[in-house]
Amino acid sequence: MAQKTTPDSNRRSERSRRAIYEAALALVAEVGYPRTTIEGIASRAGVGKQTIYRWWSSKAEVLMEAFVDLGVQAAEAAGQGAAGQGGWAEADGIPDTGDLEADLKTVLRATVDELLDPRYDAAARALAAEGVANPTFGEEFVGLLLMPSLELYARRLRAAQDAGQVRAEIDPYIARDLFVSPLAQRWLQGTGPLDHAYADTLVEYALYGISPR
Amino acid sequence: MAQKTTPDSNRRSERSRRAIYEAALALVAEVGYPRTTIEGIASRAGVGKQTIYRWWSSKAEVLMEAFVDLGVQAAEAAGQGAAGQGGWAEADGIPDTGDLEADLKTVLRATVDELLDPRYDAAARALAAEGVANPTFGEEFVGLLLMPSLELYARRLRAAQDAGQVRAEIDPYIARDLFVSPLAQRWLQGTGPLDHAYADTLVEYALYGISPR
Repeated sequence: MAQKTTPDSNRRSERSRRAIYEAALALVAEVGYPRTTIEGIASRAGVGKQTIYRWWSSKAEVLMEAFVDLGVQAAEAAGQGAAGQGGWAEADGIPDTGDLEADLKTVLRATVDELLDPRYDAAARALAAEGVANPTFGEEFVGLLLMPSLELYARRLRAAQDAGQVRAEIDPYIARDLFVSPLAQRWLQGTGPLDHAYADTLVEYALYGISPR
Repeated sequence: MAQKTTPDSNRRSERSRRAIYEAALALVAEVGYPRTTIEGIASRAGVGKQTIYRWWSSKAEVLMEAFVDLGVQAAEAAGQGAAGQGGWAEADGIPDTGDLEADLKTVLRATVDELLDPRYDAAARALAAEGVANPTFGEEFVGLLLMPSLELYARRLRAAQDAGQVRAEIDPYIARDLFVSPLAQRWLQGTGPLDHAYADTLVEYALYGISPR
């Protein structure tokens, strides 16, 4: 029987959807990706399994959308879309004030804040771990959640090339890795402290090199 | 009853030890770290559980030593200890020919080869995934298997500073991340192709920067 869509039922749907996202993120953080099930998410969200299958076809889909929604919520909380979304769910691009060094530092600092946010960390870590163990899953996860923001860094570097602030022969898809990958490795592998000073230093070294000028 | 140690029993021990390492690496690659057990390793290696407990106190210990042994084997196969050990089980340091760029490229190319070696990849991936999911385990894994070689990069950069090839104010523990972390992220998250050309380009960008000189 088809449900009649009214403003009230839309609000109810919206509430269920957020409850399902929250349940999915909490569950994957607690038991890991392999042991997270649609049944478990439904039970924790207080909805029937069929409610979930009406909107999504797999737990992976629920989780991907839950992460995108985390980004939307963070942007709403920040009252703006730009700098608050750092490395993962960037929607409005990287600022271009004409000062490449300052713009990269702004976005990388926001990325550090996001990586350290406990609401984000546990679930993202569980998904990232599954992606490392299982590259097929990782490709989907990385493709949906990470590659779009990596693309924005490359575009910002391309704009800097057009403005003469980055040498023309530099490949922006490799150059961005100099400052993005170190944040990722410190988050994934704990190889050192992850803070704003580290992000700033990476940008400076990447722009000006470490050899004498 | 204490076993009498003779040349023959030493050779037998050495064979058992290698069989146990191989069983542990194969098992963790197949079923992941959480489902790998001492019992499973013993059964696959064709030894009693007690044989394993005589030498090691946990599956983590067996696996750590198995990885160190993989490095020893690779060094033996290469007939030399230096460049063959790349990012993980470096024993003899990073070459210092006086040419920093060439030396870093040599070692990073070897690291790429090691990361792509299927004998290494599956088990290392299973352990790295466990380290991402469980930072306490990750700290041990990273501390034993990754930090020693990261230390060598910092030392090589320090020597280059002494030789005037790296600016004095550069922090070698951050600078090394510019070329090491991108390899790690491409291996862990599949964010792009991992090959010698990529390693070379990272070294060049890190040394000379991407902004106009």
